[in-house]
Amino acid sequence: MPIARTPEPPYYAVIFTNQRAEGDKGYGKMAERMEELARGEPGYLGIEGARTAEGFGITVSYWASEEAIVAWKANMEHRSAQAAGKKTWYEGYSIRIAKVERAYGFARGPAA
Amino acid sequence: MPIARTPEPPYYAVIFTNQRAEGDKGYGKMAERMEELARGEPGYLGIEGARTAEGFGITVSYWASEEAIVAWKANMEHRSAQAAGKKTWYEGYSIRIAKVERAYGFARGPAA
Repeated sequence: MPIARTPEPPYYAVIFTNQRAEGDKGYGKMAERMEELARGEPGYLGIEGARTAEGFGITVSYWASEEAIVAWKANMEHRSAQAAGKKTWYEGYSIRIAKVERAYGFARGPAA
Repeated sequence: MPIARTPEPPYYAVIFTNQRAEGDKGYGKMAERMEELARGEPGYLGIEGARTAEGFGITVSYWASEEAIVAWKANMEHRSAQAAGKKTWYEGYSIRIAKVERAYGFARGPAA
């Protein structure tokens, strides 16, 4: 998963940090489906994710507005995954909604 | 690295996403030292990080104010690492400064 190509700020970020519970129990399939769903939502700008071998993960999704985040949270299929997540897939998680105010970066090579 | 125990919003997040270049070249030692330095800065609230086997990483640090982030960016030892980072450790990175407006979470077990 590469660095997301987001527009100039301001825009919004949902910082989802979590500790996976043991066993897949359909997690991989669900995570793939949620990413696919998010990409199709209005106001979706991009997503970035990484996980350690110990199951600690960070997913940051980027959105054009707070309204887009509220709509994504309320998506019926997403809601069902949220409910199952607490019981099945995570030891714990934290969700932070943040307004990106400044951004800068660097990329090596011809695409810089 | 566990989920950071941050206070009630508002506070700030620095979302640092990056693709590592090949070879350690002192990266591990530097990263450890930068985390140690950050923890000692005024306004530091916490840090979370994860990296994939392919070298894509996300580090999110949390700060009490924008001023704290500016001071951390200007820290002399940190500035030296920033300069070396572009040349030595990263294929590319993105830094996003964001104001956390809402947060919620879940933790299993007696500490919940």
